[in-house]
Amino acid sequence: MDVSDFFFKLLIVLLSAKLFAEVFAYLKLPAVLGEVIAGIIIGPSVLGLITPDATFHLLAEIGILLLLFEVGLETDVGQIVNVGGQSILVAVTGVVAPALIGFWISNHIFHMPFVVSLFIGGTLVATSIGITVRVLVDLKMHQTKTAKIVLGAAVLDDIIGVVILAVLYDFAVKGEVNVINAAKVLGFIMVFLLLAPVITKLFVPLISKLSSNSRTKGMVPTIIISLILGLAVISHKVGAPEILGSFAAGIALARRFFLPLGATIDHYSHGLAEKIEENMKPIIDLFVPVFFVIVGVSINLSVIDFSSPVFWQTAGLLTFGAVIAKMISGVWVKGGFMTKLSTGIAMVPRGEVGLIFAEVGKRSKIFDDMIYAVIVFVVALTTLFAPLVLRFVIRKED
Amino acid sequence: MDVSDFFFKLLIVLLSAKLFAEVFAYLKLPAVLGEVIAGIIIGPSVLGLITPDATFHLLAEIGILLLLFEVGLETDVGQIVNVGGQSILVAVTGVVAPALIGFWISNHIFHMPFVVSLFIGGTLVATSIGITVRVLVDLKMHQTKTAKIVLGAAVLDDIIGVVILAVLYDFAVKGEVNVINAAKVLGFIMVFLLLAPVITKLFVPLISKLSSNSRTKGMVPTIIISLILGLAVISHKVGAPEILGSFAAGIALARRFFLPLGATIDHYSHGLAEKIEENMKPIIDLFVPVFFVIVGVSINLSVIDFSSPVFWQTAGLLTFGAVIAKMISGVWVKGGFMTKLSTGIAMVPRGEVGLIFAEVGKRSKIFDDMIYAVIVFVVALTTLFAPLVLRFVIRKED
Repeated sequence: MDVSDFFFKLLIVLLSAKLFAEVFAYLKLPAVLGEVIAGIIIGPSVLGLITPDATFHLLAEIGILLLLFEVGLETDVGQIVNVGGQSILVAVTGVVAPALIGFWISNHIFHMPFVVSLFIGGTLVATSIGITVRVLVDLKMHQTKTAKIVLGAAVLDDIIGVVILAVLYDFAVKGEVNVINAAKVLGFIMVFLLLAPVITKLFVPLISKLSSNSRTKGMVPTIIISLILGLAVISHKVGAPEILGSFAAGIALARRFFLPLGATIDHYSHGLAEKIEENMKPIIDLFVPVFFVIVGVSINLSVIDFSSPVFWQTAGLLTFGAVIAKMISGVWVKGGFMTKLSTGIAMVPRGEVGLIFAEVGKRSKIFDDMIYAVIVFVVALTTLFAPLVLRFVIRKED
Repeated sequence: MDVSDFFFKLLIVLLSAKLFAEVFAYLKLPAVLGEVIAGIIIGPSVLGLITPDATFHLLAEIGILLLLFEVGLETDVGQIVNVGGQSILVAVTGVVAPALIGFWISNHIFHMPFVVSLFIGGTLVATSIGITVRVLVDLKMHQTKTAKIVLGAAVLDDIIGVVILAVLYDFAVKGEVNVINAAKVLGFIMVFLLLAPVITKLFVPLISKLSSNSRTKGMVPTIIISLILGLAVISHKVGAPEILGSFAAGIALARRFFLPLGATIDHYSHGLAEKIEENMKPIIDLFVPVFFVIVGVSINLSVIDFSSPVFWQTAGLLTFGAVIAKMISGVWVKGGFMTKLSTGIAMVPRGEVGLIFAEVGKRSKIFDDMIYAVIVFVVALTTLFAPLVLRFVIRKED
């Protein structure tokens, strides 16, 4: 790509994201919805100004890493552990219900082949951590108990989603399921998530020393971004999604993350937490919207044949199933109906994970063009559903 | 490129840059030299961990835009105008002398064809603004009078370099020189450089309003980066290098940039200047080193046949000519011998512009592999020469 052309496209991505985010925020809707819609508009669905090429894809991936880092930074692990039981129940229900409903609708109602139906069920499994978290932040409810449960559940079902994708892919390609292998991957991921923040935490005194003794500019942002990238790479190596690595980096640097010895980041290194926040904030705020715009750009609605009744039947029923199945998962949350409801709704967005499933399905010829289009449409609707609906449920919850 | 692979490479780029920059700063050498050498080491010259692929190239371009923006931000246009006469003399001498010496060495001593000799002369014309400015900043002499003269001269000879490249390329391809066209491009660039900061300045009240009334996060970094990208794109459209656009953006937002009406940025919008500095600093400090690492990565020393005596003769004489010719340009500076000398040395680095010339020459088959290797080597030496030597001259100048 020509340099000037890239600059122009990046300009369009940044400005359209900001414009729509501001308008949506003004309308008291989540800004993230504006960013995804900006992506749909500038992408191949409408204007075709931006295509999801390699460089934008990589910049978007940096954006989602940074978002999960920020979430980790603001996460109190103690609180997550407190609601851990509820998170596990929500996560497991939010995996099993959509998988069964997705499989049942595809196989029993639309008589699709067994493997295709399995894959469609798999597509509906993983909640999009990115969308869910941004919606909660945009609505200023990310410090509520509901948010802790949803965050825990979304992390868990992202892990389960990745393992299921690996298992289903093996099954589709080799015709066999390697349970031991899947269990191994799951074990690695769990060990990584438990150990990574603790080990990273041990490096905090070193980071603090480097940042105060540096003779060059930009030591803090460079070292923090390096830490995020490093943990993302390790996370990928153990078979987990990269974003869990940056989440772990955030948790390790969080002010409220206590080591067994009881020392916080402030104890080790006075002022480091402020320095990190000050330096990372502009970088995070600049990159995060790029991710959501590119999610919008990746949802190519122009592949859809909107005149086909079969399309509408399949997409309509699957969207309905996808929404209801995740909403069921809210029943495990302690509290009133509105709390259960808002938890369930927050779990609905599928976003990037669903799109990865759809891409894998299409590339391995499990999905034909029609089913691929259906999945893209279902993912788009679930992504837009939560931000829109949650806004009104929460208003009632107050 | 695989996402995880990209993260890993970006990690190597950031960490190696920081490591070498710190070591060089500790040795009281310019950090930029460390970054370029880090690039040479991780690039194809030595370890081959990083190749200058499209995405890194684009990230590097963002880095150089941001550096020129920062330089513009700290530039007092009044002071540049004050030393403008000396800058023009330095720039013109710094264009004519290397072009003539480069042509003469190639054509008369080594009997190379006419067009090849012209191209080699052209390669030696443009001082690398990026390297020069970073060296001055690293040595904390960017607020001296010498620095103002060098900055003005480097901007001018970058413009002249681009016009010469266009003319030479036309001549090489079509066999004719379109003087009117070249004059037009030069005119466009001059008008752009004069008008862009003034017009941008008129938008400052709007930027200030947007940044205080925004309901979303990251308005300031997004709008400033957009401004930089927008002016870079316009700059490219009028035929100028993109970096002149970001330089103009920096000048427009500089505290000391007065409009004819006499209002500074602080007058219009209390606190905006601080907000811009605070938000842009981490982003600038993160991206700028990427540019210099990629300059190092692009200098592929492994293409050079170091056992060839012809290579050593040509490269040695051309490097000598390239250094001396730029140093002559310092004679116009008012002041003692050491001031003239340090100005001349600061003009020596060729860096990215020389490499672009070499690439164009190679792609259009004007340069064969040997001459291409010679040019890469000459560029590498001039790039490393200034930071190393200037350090000692300045120590004497105090």
